[in-house]
Amino acid sequence: MESPPEPDRAPLLRRQDTRLDSYVDRYAARTHGMTASAIRALFAVANRPEVVSLAGGMPNIADLPLDVVGSTLQDLVLGRGLQAMQYGSGQGEQEIREAICEVMRLEGISAHPDDVTVTVGSQQALDLVTRIFCDPGDVVLCEAPSYVGALGVFRSFQCDVAHVAMDEQGLVPEALREAVLALRAEGRKVKFVYTIPSFHNPAGVTQSLERREAILAVAEETDLLVIEDNPYGLLGFDADPIPAIRSLSDDRVVYLGTFSKTFAPGFRIGWVLAPHAVREKLVLAQESATLCPPTFSQFAITAYLRQHDWQGQIKVFAEMYRERRDAMLAGLAADMPEGVTWTVPAGGFYVWVTLPPGLDSQAMLPRAVTARVAYVPGTAFYADGFGSRHLRLSYCFPTPERIREGTRRLGEVLAHETELMSTFGTQVSAPRRPELPSHNAPGTNQA
Amino acid sequence: MESPPEPDRAPLLRRQDTRLDSYVDRYAARTHGMTASAIRALFAVANRPEVVSLAGGMPNIADLPLDVVGSTLQDLVLGRGLQAMQYGSGQGEQEIREAICEVMRLEGISAHPDDVTVTVGSQQALDLVTRIFCDPGDVVLCEAPSYVGALGVFRSFQCDVAHVAMDEQGLVPEALREAVLALRAEGRKVKFVYTIPSFHNPAGVTQSLERREAILAVAEETDLLVIEDNPYGLLGFDADPIPAIRSLSDDRVVYLGTFSKTFAPGFRIGWVLAPHAVREKLVLAQESATLCPPTFSQFAITAYLRQHDWQGQIKVFAEMYRERRDAMLAGLAADMPEGVTWTVPAGGFYVWVTLPPGLDSQAMLPRAVTARVAYVPGTAFYADGFGSRHLRLSYCFPTPERIREGTRRLGEVLAHETELMSTFGTQVSAPRRPELPSHNAPGTNQA
Repeated sequence: MESPPEPDRAPLLRRQDTRLDSYVDRYAARTHGMTASAIRALFAVANRPEVVSLAGGMPNIADLPLDVVGSTLQDLVLGRGLQAMQYGSGQGEQEIREAICEVMRLEGISAHPDDVTVTVGSQQALDLVTRIFCDPGDVVLCEAPSYVGALGVFRSFQCDVAHVAMDEQGLVPEALREAVLALRAEGRKVKFVYTIPSFHNPAGVTQSLERREAILAVAEETDLLVIEDNPYGLLGFDADPIPAIRSLSDDRVVYLGTFSKTFAPGFRIGWVLAPHAVREKLVLAQESATLCPPTFSQFAITAYLRQHDWQGQIKVFAEMYRERRDAMLAGLAADMPEGVTWTVPAGGFYVWVTLPPGLDSQAMLPRAVTARVAYVPGTAFYADGFGSRHLRLSYCFPTPERIREGTRRLGEVLAHETELMSTFGTQVSAPRRPELPSHNAPGTNQA
Repeated sequence: MESPPEPDRAPLLRRQDTRLDSYVDRYAARTHGMTASAIRALFAVANRPEVVSLAGGMPNIADLPLDVVGSTLQDLVLGRGLQAMQYGSGQGEQEIREAICEVMRLEGISAHPDDVTVTVGSQQALDLVTRIFCDPGDVVLCEAPSYVGALGVFRSFQCDVAHVAMDEQGLVPEALREAVLALRAEGRKVKFVYTIPSFHNPAGVTQSLERREAILAVAEETDLLVIEDNPYGLLGFDADPIPAIRSLSDDRVVYLGTFSKTFAPGFRIGWVLAPHAVREKLVLAQESATLCPPTFSQFAITAYLRQHDWQGQIKVFAEMYRERRDAMLAGLAADMPEGVTWTVPAGGFYVWVTLPPGLDSQAMLPRAVTARVAYVPGTAFYADGFGSRHLRLSYCFPTPERIREGTRRLGEVLAHETELMSTFGTQVSAPRRPELPSHNAPGTNQA
């Protein structure tokens, strides 16, 4: 073997390597738009044990019955291991597609397993949907704010994102109609509207059934495709799930689901439910992307769903998240200074906070981390630089006690910032970011 | 719940649904190039039990110790389940990246775990590499023939593929130089050469160390990036592995590996080893594509590598494949009519067969399937319609007895075709396909 000697270099030195990228002239145009997301940079900070992270969106899976999962997987390997460890269908295995239809039925969706494509988490669902629909320069309509991971996908396919106003019931139908018509009047191709109807990430709001019907009516009127992303729909705290938009229309909606929040994210299994012709394109895209989604993960989830009271488990999760939501709302009510408002989520993981005019959540973040509390600045959830007066708090992962400690620390940071501002007239060292009046972000329903 | 009633439709009826695609005007330009691959269509046929399939590339994993794997996974869930089932790093877990460096060392590669990006099989490695490097209209150089799944990826990113001649030692360096210079003279952007140096799919040939050095020298001379795809390198039958091209150069080669053939494909874990700056782009692309590759699969493989004699297991696999290769070569020697030639693989899964002039492997396929034997027509491995005189036989999955039955049936089909041709002067019902003289495909070294 004529291999070069093992290089003498420490991992930490490599990470700080700042030499220029000698491959820069070789990349595709799309690659120049790929930048590290705010959430990614934050994960490194938030992992330090002394910091209360209200930043990440990791589900808390500590309540999973590890003994049940462990013996289920052992039985799976012994009984069907050669199938479960082999290549599978590009569309995903028949059995899990049938199980997925059972899951979707809980939100009013009647679907056929033939129309389901299994994906590597619903992130890959976003990737495949964008891949088949979007050329560079196409417009995607997103809520204001929208999921940071979706904005990254749209950017990576060189789409232009146009944000559409939300209110306390989520996406505003009239604003959607206006956006479509205005963009088309400019000659732009609007490919679809991307919406998270239940327990919105990051806004924490939920579309009522009437709102969903009104959004669908605008989509029909303007011949617009709806991408419905629903990772949290079964994690409601108070009532039965509101029927999915997909339950109201078979051919106008492409629906994305995932097991990441109702079971566990590490298996990386999500799905797309799409009209038949679209499904065929998705399967071709999936074969090109991965040959097939992880077979073992699909068998594992199918076996778990069969051998465990998975609906009862989801209720356990929801109750645990409700307690944490309550801790966060109590903490915010106790600790936030005058002028701060926030949304009250009825499920899911997130609260969306609005700061008083003049404060900048991104400029404030280093001071918050110094005070040992982390959040995601609102700008991460906009494609256009808006959002500096907002921030996202997540209550999914820390204990209620840690959440209370986190809001206490955040309250102190905000009180200090507000005091500085009232003394000096503006936030110290904060670059002023645009506050576009066209955005009507939710955040006025203070608890 | 106001969901529509369950539609009254049978799965089989849905599959035969031939209505027009009403979404066709909404797709991206790239989507119109996505078509079902020959291999995909064949899997349906080859799955019929009466057909001897020499078509598929499924590894035979029956020798895996299911008891060991089963108890390893149970222990994993009980001991580290909450980590293994959680979101992980977009780059992949540190522990498996260290293990991957150990695996690559067997082929002479010295690498740092920081420079490894974990992917959803090496198919996704191809997807991510093409995504970061290739704009529509860029040229990718591929061997003639090349891996059908790679050609699909390049097509899906709207690249143009230019094939480069091979001989019995694989890719011909002088042909590579000529192709680069000729394309650049035409003003084309050549992004990289894609090569499978060991036990080529589909050609069955292997580059000697001298050949690898010569290819690398051309790449240096022409400032060309090399994508080295090496799924089969450890599955050699006779000698130690030949050092990878990557072992000869750190910064000129992007290396793709996978556990699909040395352990099991169902976990869908492959990897890219890339220069540091390229690795950073790959991680951003991976985060956009999936957030992170399957965490559970990564923990499972790491645990398997630690708790089992995985190198001994690879030797068991290689010995099993050697027996099957021998069965196929004996069958071909006994059953092929005059004028048929084939390559003699020293490892891997595939034999590349060349038919006498006038025969068309694609036109012949329905008759072969009627005779209960399946193969992949050579045209699947070319982007330009070439390959009709070739076909790929795989010996990886069927038993030696089935392989002998398969070559017997194929021999009868070919004898009948040859007889018809000598009677009527041309193959019955065969459309003549172009046989471009520029392609110098291997296939003259009859055993």
